[in-house]
Amino acid sequence: MSKNVKFVQGNEACVEAALYAGLDFYAGYPITPSTEITELLAHRLPQRGGKFIQMEDEISSLCAIIGASLTGSKVMTATSGPGFSLMQEALGYAVMAEIPCVIVDVQRGGPSTGLPTHGSQGDVNQARWGTHGDHAIIALTASNHQDVFAVTVEAFNMAESYRTPVILLFDEVVAHMRERLVIPESGEFPLVDRLRTSVKEGVDYHPYLPREDGRLPMSDFGGVHRYNVTGLMHDMWGFPSSDPQIVHGLLRHLVDKIENRVNQIARYKEYYLDDAEHVLISYGSAARSARHVVETRRLRGEHVGLLELQTLWPFPSNIVREKCAHAKSVIVVELNMGQILHSVKLAVDHAENVFLANRIDGVFITPGDILNILRLIQGKGV
Amino acid sequence: MSKNVKFVQGNEACVEAALYAGLDFYAGYPITPSTEITELLAHRLPQRGGKFIQMEDEISSLCAIIGASLTGSKVMTATSGPGFSLMQEALGYAVMAEIPCVIVDVQRGGPSTGLPTHGSQGDVNQARWGTHGDHAIIALTASNHQDVFAVTVEAFNMAESYRTPVILLFDEVVAHMRERLVIPESGEFPLVDRLRTSVKEGVDYHPYLPREDGRLPMSDFGGVHRYNVTGLMHDMWGFPSSDPQIVHGLLRHLVDKIENRVNQIARYKEYYLDDAEHVLISYGSAARSARHVVETRRLRGEHVGLLELQTLWPFPSNIVREKCAHAKSVIVVELNMGQILHSVKLAVDHAENVFLANRIDGVFITPGDILNILRLIQGKGV
Amino acid sequence: MSKNVKFVQGNEACVEAALYAGLDFYAGYPITPSTEITELLAHRLPQRGGKFIQMEDEISSLCAIIGASLTGSKVMTATSGPGFSLMQEALGYAVMAEIPCVIVDVQRGGPSTGLPTHGSQGDVNQARWGTHGDHAIIALTASNHQDVFAVTVEAFNMAESYRTPVILLFDEVVAHMRERLVIPESGEFPLVDRLRTSVKEGVDYHPYLPREDGRLPMSDFGGVHRYNVTGLMHDMWGFPSSDPQIVHGLLRHLVDKIENRVNQIARYKEYYLDDAEHVLISYGSAARSARHVVETRRLRGEHVGLLELQTLWPFPSNIVREKCAHAKSVIVVELNMGQILHSVKLAVDHAENVFLANRIDGVFITPGDILNILRLIQGKGV
Amino acid sequence: MSKNVKFVQGNEACVEAALYAGLDFYAGYPITPSTEITELLAHRLPQRGGKFIQMEDEISSLCAIIGASLTGSKVMTATSGPGFSLMQEALGYAVMAEIPCVIVDVQRGGPSTGLPTHGSQGDVNQARWGTHGDHAIIALTASNHQDVFAVTVEAFNMAESYRTPVILLFDEVVAHMRERLVIPESGEFPLVDRLRTSVKEGVDYHPYLPREDGRLPMSDFGGVHRYNVTGLMHDMWGFPSSDPQIVHGLLRHLVDKIENRVNQIARYKEYYLDDAEHVLISYGSAARSARHVVETRRLRGEHVGLLELQTLWPFPSNIVREKCAHAKSVIVVELNMGQILHSVKLAVDHAENVFLANRIDGVFITPGDILNILRLIQGKGV
Repeated sequence: MSKNVKFVQGNEACVEAALYAGLDFYAGYPITPSTEITELLAHRLPQRGGKFIQMEDEISSLCAIIGASLTGSKVMTATSGPGFSLMQEALGYAVMAEIPCVIVDVQRGGPSTGLPTHGSQGDVNQARWGTHGDHAIIALTASNHQDVFAVTVEAFNMAESYRTPVILLFDEVVAHMRERLVIPESGEFPLVDRLRTSVKEGVDYHPYLPREDGRLPMSDFGGVHRYNVTGLMHDMWGFPSSDPQIVHGLLRHLVDKIENRVNQIARYKEYYLDDAEHVLISYGSAARSARHVVETRRLRGEHVGLLELQTLWPFPSNIVREKCAHAKSVIVVELNMGQILHSVKLAVDHAENVFLANRIDGVFITPGDILNILRLIQGKGV
Repeated sequence: MSKNVKFVQGNEACVEAALYAGLDFYAGYPITPSTEITELLAHRLPQRGGKFIQMEDEISSLCAIIGASLTGSKVMTATSGPGFSLMQEALGYAVMAEIPCVIVDVQRGGPSTGLPTHGSQGDVNQARWGTHGDHAIIALTASNHQDVFAVTVEAFNMAESYRTPVILLFDEVVAHMRERLVIPESGEFPLVDRLRTSVKEGVDYHPYLPREDGRLPMSDFGGVHRYNVTGLMHDMWGFPSSDPQIVHGLLRHLVDKIENRVNQIARYKEYYLDDAEHVLISYGSAARSARHVVETRRLRGEHVGLLELQTLWPFPSNIVREKCAHAKSVIVVELNMGQILHSVKLAVDHAENVFLANRIDGVFITPGDILNILRLIQGKGV
Repeated sequence: MSKNVKFVQGNEACVEAALYAGLDFYAGYPITPSTEITELLAHRLPQRGGKFIQMEDEISSLCAIIGASLTGSKVMTATSGPGFSLMQEALGYAVMAEIPCVIVDVQRGGPSTGLPTHGSQGDVNQARWGTHGDHAIIALTASNHQDVFAVTVEAFNMAESYRTPVILLFDEVVAHMRERLVIPESGEFPLVDRLRTSVKEGVDYHPYLPREDGRLPMSDFGGVHRYNVTGLMHDMWGFPSSDPQIVHGLLRHLVDKIENRVNQIARYKEYYLDDAEHVLISYGSAARSARHVVETRRLRGEHVGLLELQTLWPFPSNIVREKCAHAKSVIVVELNMGQILHSVKLAVDHAENVFLANRIDGVFITPGDILNILRLIQGKGV
Repeated sequence: MSKNVKFVQGNEACVEAALYAGLDFYAGYPITPSTEITELLAHRLPQRGGKFIQMEDEISSLCAIIGASLTGSKVMTATSGPGFSLMQEALGYAVMAEIPCVIVDVQRGGPSTGLPTHGSQGDVNQARWGTHGDHAIIALTASNHQDVFAVTVEAFNMAESYRTPVILLFDEVVAHMRERLVIPESGEFPLVDRLRTSVKEGVDYHPYLPREDGRLPMSDFGGVHRYNVTGLMHDMWGFPSSDPQIVHGLLRHLVDKIENRVNQIARYKEYYLDDAEHVLISYGSAARSARHVVETRRLRGEHVGLLELQTLWPFPSNIVREKCAHAKSVIVVELNMGQILHSVKLAVDHAENVFLANRIDGVFITPGDILNILRLIQGKGV
């Protein structure tokens, strides 16, 4: 067991989980603060027979893993904000063509090159809306290394289950902090493998014809079946179509396969919510300070609770609404100008009771920062 | 006067307005349904001494106009969804470095290459959140050619006034439809020229030190002053800084210069709102059908009104709230899955009374479509 | 006219007003930041035939003016927090014996000797509750020198009208700031003179028998009438009594003569309250920043208003409640940990919408400070 | 055991408890109705090696015990309203310099010399707000002699634990009434001793540097360490500072060390609150009649309960709110014009359901008085 305990950075926890989940193709271009992921995989992935390619930029990185995924690999790339912006066009292609892939965005201060070495959670709404056109997306995050491991494994599982890109939205603080990680035994975490078609060679394979359960079996591209893949609206054969019924159906399919499963995809943790009058909602590194606030205020008898979100998209509106149903105030704690704040306001019954505790100066938000804002929100001044 | 009346496509109205506004540098890569803008300017711009460059892709197109703007030119590029996704990284640079420029996105069906020849309004939230990191943006739209002309001129004026990229979010229907356009006389529309620094050669120029009125005078790059321009967080000299106070101040400046002027930037039209029980909110081509519904229902004595938004970002929340204050229901009419819908819900006092009338199949929404949805909202069934 | 315009400190405005109101006896002990009042009166009062005495401490100062008032003089003393604490016992005597007098407390940072040279509004609740036993008190304040003048004249008028000590609660910022003061012409402001008894010499005079209008005529002590004055509960002759009916009646009289006239005693100013969604309530120097916030937010179309209180005690609850009836939020701006805050919460219909914008570090609260707190209260974060 | 049972006045119970708690220095000036405390200690304290000093007035009394406490003694003084008013300035010094001391105020009718031989509870808000400047205070009370003993011991313990003055707010009725008192065995009640620094002689001692648990170890003044004590705002060395961060931190420390421990400091008793529709809230002697009302109404099946407060400051708002959460009406029973009434109204969810049952004529409130008021509150008239 002891060999399974490590003292690692968050980025390394992500790498361990990706290997655990069965990653066998990685393409990337290094950028702070995600670089360790690329570095470690350059070393680790070939050792176990996987492929590592350093690409010339982030566009080619995402395109490379999309292609590799189509041929049957479990794939990942990692970047930070500027690289993630460059990936937006190919990301839409993966959404439209339903290509399983995992994209890690280790967030740093933005916009533009911004603050490369400081933490931020400024790419949350970009993960949702960054590529053009209506679509749905899955984005997961975590506040500690054990959870980084868990959601990274989930990301691969969800990518395969729903044939979709999954975004891992970590932040610089978690990525570079070192803490204990226990790597689970093989088999401890369930893994979802590629669902391959049972259609035999020589028989027509419909790449975009869902089974009864909604899943679309794949056939390794370049293998026994010939089929078309396109970023254009397409029919069940993968061929372009502008027929309104097909277009409508495809768009609803792409969105519903994710939005309708929001409860299954939702990962969250809750602390003292049962009788909480003040509910903090947070995620990623900011949730560490939020949790500290809750633990210490509870010691003083204050009815404060925390909902820590790990699934940011699809936004678990019903869960948030239920958890906040009896709260006098809801305080969103995040390292940006209020991005999840919008979704929380849309989810709850009383948007006027939702407040924001944040920092935007590249400095990590402390429990003291949250308490100061809490005082003001409670009408107690400084 | 008669030579000023034309029968044109929306894309041509945009070109006429850009020239009227003083465009003198254009770089672009053709993509349906924006191609006419590039084609026309390849012909028209050199005629009056401006520069036209066809670039190898959309990334270089945006980068080219950013550079040209820094040297003192009024600049524009045009594209559609896939190209706009590719521009997201450079867009953030223009936001951070405060470079005046105009980017036209003529929306077609998405995501990915989607439906090139059909209309959509699916890039609205991308315009707001497409690049990484917290930021603000200005995005304008229009439903007819006279207004396309007007908001295009405004786009140049706002870009110069606020030193910011401005997005023109047209859609394929308006872009390709032909209708009458009266080109205003020279001087009829006020034009905002580049605010150049009065700092003399040999005296230190601070590129990011606002005047008392909040505006930042520019010095043509390559001219008499030496200064630094970067996508990193920076001080008033333009040099990188991670000092928390400078970072906080710069981010607030970038956002506040736009969000705090939401009332000045807000362009909208209203029809029969004074006593409207049912308020339609729409924009772009969808607003044409919405207006038709309002006009015909009024003939029947129904209290229906229309708020047509031309400024989508910054979202004019206060105006929307006030206009909807006495409405029984608010129906957002748009050609997507409900993007402005979110902002309307966040703006109004009773989000539960906000409904969506839309199409997502590439077919233009008709007055009949809206009426059918109105019946359902009113509890009258199909 | 021009000789009546001065450029003075707030303390000097207070002195000018006291002289205008007819001050003829002053006893005091200097303490920062009230010292200029004592200094100036040492010079000015004897010039016009008044008496100035520098006492050995604050207890004797208040006792001296109480005695002088009984003999028929208009009297005042001035001090700051530590001295005001020492005066609490004699203050109760003046309340009980119904002696007209004016006590200026120029507030500095407390508790204890605290911050002698920095402003504060920390003595507001002390003015109300500092002496033992149930009682009522009048306390006035002002935010600029013209109003300092006006409320100082009012203080003398109210002291005489209601036979009560009146507290002038200024603060160091107003006291030491210099600005323009126009001294009114003689007769411009009405003055209330001592109400002397019409009872003739040799006829019994009841010092504590109110007239029909509730006022108690006085007889200069040491003059033609013999009567008793005591801090004990007493009858209409001024003699001690523990008869429950007399005790009850006297206490109710002492409180009701002030609390029942709250609307007559209330002095306040209002700015843009008619349609204000956010109501600031402030007083003294803090109201200067609050007013600046209101003026600048109005320019941006925001519905913000200000209620500036000049009468702090008796607290004008009904007026506050009415002015805040339609407010979404009420923000009390004061230089303490929230003292008037309590009274505002008790006054309004929705105490949960009352917030505090304050500073407690000896630094004057700026419009920027208020705006930052306003952002947090509005759920917008930093 | 029998020698531990006494039939005593409340004042004597207080004396016994002070001796039990380790009092070794007392300075005072006699005033009705607290005189017995001074008299008894003049006799008892020297017997066990303590120091008793009769001072010339109340100011010097408090100053004397502050000095003695600094040198390492457990100290107390006792007075009534007029003396307590005189102590307000030195009280603020003890707050600021964090000097453990116990001040007994045996309340009589006020204001001023008022009603020396009659009971009252008129100094409750003075205990909170009597000295100038923002601060927090601990004030305890009791309704019977056993509890007088208990809260007096607590007062010494809290003074030492929190380095703060603690006020014992008894009233004349309890003070002069005789009833049974069982004096606990030595060791039965835990005692908190002075926390002395472990810093060795010759090593720098920081008098105002809190330990990790928030407590500040003391060094007997005049002993092995040299340090500064001042009523001015000061740093961890005890030297004056007007640095805004130090001022802010010190004020928050002085207030938070008490307000943040409100639940630990809160002492109260409850009777039949579980299903109470009408909740009486009372304290001190008034709580005796309130309890009688509750006991007799319960016999008649009426759902009446009593919350008897022993800690008045910091006001236990959360406890009051929770206990009153299901009450149709809350009736505050006190011997003043409604002082705790304000705090109760601020604490509960429905201030409009809070009523006052009181007397202000020097006569003790009887169960019959309360019942008459209860009838009126219930709409039953007199």
